[in-house]
Amino acid sequence: MNRIGIVGLGLIGGSLGLDLRAQGYEVIGVSRRQSTCDRAVELGAVDHATVDLSALGTAEMLFLCTPINAIVPTLEQVLPYLRPEAIVTDVASVKTPIVAPATALWHQFVGGHPMAGTAEQGIEAAQRHLFDRAPYVLTPQPNTPTELVDIMTTLVQHLNSRLYICTPEAHDRAVARISHLPVMVSASLIASCTQEDGQTLELAQSLASSGFRDTSRVGGGNPELGVMMARYNRSALQAALQDYRAALDTVIEQIEQEDWAALAALLQQTQAARPPFVEEQ
Amino acid sequence: MNRIGIVGLGLIGGSLGLDLRAQGYEVIGVSRRQSTCDRAVELGAVDHATVDLSALGTAEMLFLCTPINAIVPTLEQVLPYLRPEAIVTDVASVKTPIVAPATALWHQFVGGHPMAGTAEQGIEAAQRHLFDRAPYVLTPQPNTPTELVDIMTTLVQHLNSRLYICTPEAHDRAVARISHLPVMVSASLIASCTQEDGQTLELAQSLASSGFRDTSRVGGGNPELGVMMARYNRSALQAALQDYRAALDTVIEQIEQEDWAALAALLQQTQAARPPFVEEQ
Repeated sequence: MNRIGIVGLGLIGGSLGLDLRAQGYEVIGVSRRQSTCDRAVELGAVDHATVDLSALGTAEMLFLCTPINAIVPTLEQVLPYLRPEAIVTDVASVKTPIVAPATALWHQFVGGHPMAGTAEQGIEAAQRHLFDRAPYVLTPQPNTPTELVDIMTTLVQHLNSRLYICTPEAHDRAVARISHLPVMVSASLIASCTQEDGQTLELAQSLASSGFRDTSRVGGGNPELGVMMARYNRSALQAALQDYRAALDTVIEQIEQEDWAALAALLQQTQAARPPFVEEQ
Repeated sequence: MNRIGIVGLGLIGGSLGLDLRAQGYEVIGVSRRQSTCDRAVELGAVDHATVDLSALGTAEMLFLCTPINAIVPTLEQVLPYLRPEAIVTDVASVKTPIVAPATALWHQFVGGHPMAGTAEQGIEAAQRHLFDRAPYVLTPQPNTPTELVDIMTTLVQHLNSRLYICTPEAHDRAVARISHLPVMVSASLIASCTQEDGQTLELAQSLASSGFRDTSRVGGGNPELGVMMARYNRSALQAALQDYRAALDTVIEQIEQEDWAALAALLQQTQAARPPFVEEQ
């Protein structure tokens, strides 16, 4: 395999292009905007770029790197041009709503999720080694050809990412907990803190330090991304939110009842439970 | 004023001693443990140290740096030794339950809260410039002599801290929002994430990255400190938790009803509301 197509030249598509070209692949880029195509070539993220999907007709492998809601429609549009043996993958942060329809459209599809990012977006933010040491999840179906998984495994190794293979459902449940739930928890914190009266609000803003900074970070992030997560991973996120609300209610009740022994036990548990989530892999 | 006493030689007491000695003050330290006294002298945090409260009889000013629950009892114990004109202050992170009883015991009392810390505790963690650019809140009462506030203001300037003056109640409401609420929000996140089944929990632990790391940080911190916050700032924390739960319920409802326009509007508001809390002062 030598020629790789990338549709969607943003942070993820652009960064994939930089690393894949460095590995010797020829990369063809497609973006909706000519200016993004030009910039991607200038930055070295792709060898060629165009707004025309038919340019992907020579690609042996295709990465769909558009926003979540455009992935299946883009696959539909590009189908007439694909080589029969072409492998297609995507990079969406939610897998269940993508994998079944994409596989129905194209048998040689395997869902993927490279879990890396920066606060910046767009082709200007693209960088080499973005995926280095980051998780890369593949979500094959029972009928996915094993060669696809083998080829994707090699690519993931080229990116020096940490490979995980699981079902789309397991992926979505896991990211609901560790990625989508924190956004809603953190946004609710900011929303509730703005409810103080003017003078105390101003004091709170002045006194806030690293604890508030860290806990509120992802809740103050990109609103469109937050809505996408909720929209495309709704049922897993709802389950996570219900568990979260129950945990919060336990804390509220312990404080109301002044049951300090129970609160101490709970905080000891959370202190002990955190390291496996945050230790270097 | 030349001679300052510090009771409680931990991170805060020790760091205050280092900075105040560097400003030319003579610092007398008192700790319950002789080994802590010896170490504080070795580290240069105090000029002399002893387990005997009577040593504070020559101090013109006294910092109470014990854990919250020991501050008023310590003041009661040291009263017989204090010079009549001695000024007393404390460093507790909650002010309402301290200021009234402490002022009743000693008229020359003014509550204070230097808002700095590290992940480490104890005299070994003491460091110079810990309070540099950090907020230092003073909470005088209407009948607090103005000279006390003036003298404390000078000391706060010596530490290069940012001075705020407000009522104990306003302080406690503000820190409930930006410091104590985040701990409970963050602990609930960890508690709820451990509810996944074994395989998905393991995957979630492997995939967790900076979003989970930041949002869970303060919920995985010192359990005793978390209980102290809840115990001594209970009513302000309860009010903050009620507002938080209402904000969370709004998010849950928006997702349940698939009201993506409302969720987008809320996330735009939280994105816009965060900077005043986290921008450099």
